Amino acid sequence: MTEPAPRRRGRPPRAAAEAGPGARERILSAARTEFSDRGYERTSIRGIAKAAGVDAALVHHYFGTKDEVFAAAIEVDFEPALTVAAILGDSLDGVGERLARHFLAIWENPATRTPLIAVLRSALTHDAAAKVLRGFVLRRLLERVAGELRVPDPRLRAELAASHMMGIVIMRYVLEVEPLASAPAERIVDLVGPTLQRYLTEG
Amino acid sequence: MTEPAPRRRGRPPRAAAEAGPGARERILSAARTEFSDRGYERTSIRGIAKAAGVDAALVHHYFGTKDEVFAAAIEVDFEPALTVAAILGDSLDGVGERLARHFLAIWENPATRTPLIAVLRSALTHDAAAKVLRGFVLRRLLERVAGELRVPDPRLRAELAASHMMGIVIMRYVLEVEPLASAPAERIVDLVGPTLQRYLTEG
Repeated sequence: MTEPAPRRRGRPPRAAAEAGPGARERILSAARTEFSDRGYERTSIRGIAKAAGVDAALVHHYFGTKDEVFAAAIEVDFEPALTVAAILGDSLDGVGERLARHFLAIWENPATRTPLIAVLRSALTHDAAAKVLRGFVLRRLLERVAGELRVPDPRLRAELAASHMMGIVIMRYVLEVEPLASAPAERIVDLVGPTLQRYLTEG
Repeated sequence: MTEPAPRRRGRPPRAAAEAGPGARERILSAARTEFSDRGYERTSIRGIAKAAGVDAALVHHYFGTKDEVFAAAIEVDFEPALTVAAILGDSLDGVGERLARHFLAIWENPATRTPLIAVLRSALTHDAAAKVLRGFVLRRLLERVAGELRVPDPRLRAELAASHMMGIVIMRYVLEVEPLASAPAERIVDLVGPTLQRYLTEG
C-alpha cells in the first residue's frame, strides 16, 4: 500500500512551521500509543498533540476529527492484516491453510498484536470506533478478499471466514481460554484451514 | 439448572430484615441492569445497592465482591446459552446445524442479546471481567460440550466452534458488518452448520 497523501485542511497553522519536519509521523505515532494505552474514549486530540510535542491545531490540520485520527492509526495497525488479501494470490488451492497460518502469525507477534487488540477493544465498546473499523474493514480488507472468490455470496463468505479468525483471536489472546490459548499455532492452522477453505472456495 | 443457593456471609446485617423478602432477586436484577448499562468498570456495589433499594452491606452479604456479583449476573444471562450443551443430546447427527440455529436464536432475541453483549464487552475490556467469564465459560459451557464429543482434543474443538460463534456474534450484532448483519439467520445456519459439525464430530 502506498502512503496516503497527508490530508491538509485550510491554511497550515503557524504551529506547522514550529513543529518542524516529521511532525505528521510523530502525531500518528503518538495517536497509536494513546489509543492503545488509553482506549478510544479516554484519548483526546489534546492528549495526542501533547504526546507528539505539537499544537492541537496541527493534529486537526493533518487528520481532522478524533475519528479521523483513529482511522489513520487503524490504517497503520491493519497494514499487516491487509496483506492477507495478497495470500489469495493466483490460486485458491490451499488458501484456507495459508490464510490461517498468515493470520495467526500476525497475532502471534506481540508488536502487531498489541495495537490490533487495542483497536478491537475500542471498536467493541464505542460506536464511533466501531463505525471507523467497519468502514475500514469493509472498504479495504473484505472487499479485496471477496473480489478474489468464485463462489455465491463472496462477501458473506469472506465475512464468515473473518468472523472465525476474529473469534479465535478473542478467545486465544484476549480472554485466554485454555487450551486454545496455549495450543500450538500449527495445530490451530490444521483445524481451521479446512473451514476457511470451504468458506472461500466451495459453492 | 436449579437456582443456586443464596450465598450468605456471617451474620445477616440488620439491613436484611429491613430490605424485606425478595431482596436477593432485586439485587441480582439491579446488578444485571447496572453492568449492562454502565459496563463493568463503572458499576459499583454501592450503585447496585442503591438501584435495588437496599444497603450495600446486604449486597456483600448475599454475593461478596463485585466480581462475585458479576459472576452471579453472568450466570443468569448465560442461562439460555447453557442450553446449547443440551442440544448435543443423544446423537451427534446434524448437531452442527442444530447448534448454529439454537445459538443464533438466542442472539436474534433482543431480550437475551442485550445482556450478553454487555457481558462480552465487559470481558473484552476488563481483565477481572474476562477472568470471571473465562472461569464461567470453561466450567459450565465448554466442559459440558466437550464431554459429549468423541474426537481427539474435544475441548480445543469445542472452543474452536465457540470461537466461530463468538466472532459471528461480534461482526453481526456488535460491529454490524454488512452483509453479515442483515443476512437471514437460516442462511448463516446453512453455511456455519457444516463447520461446527466438522469440529465436533470429525476426527
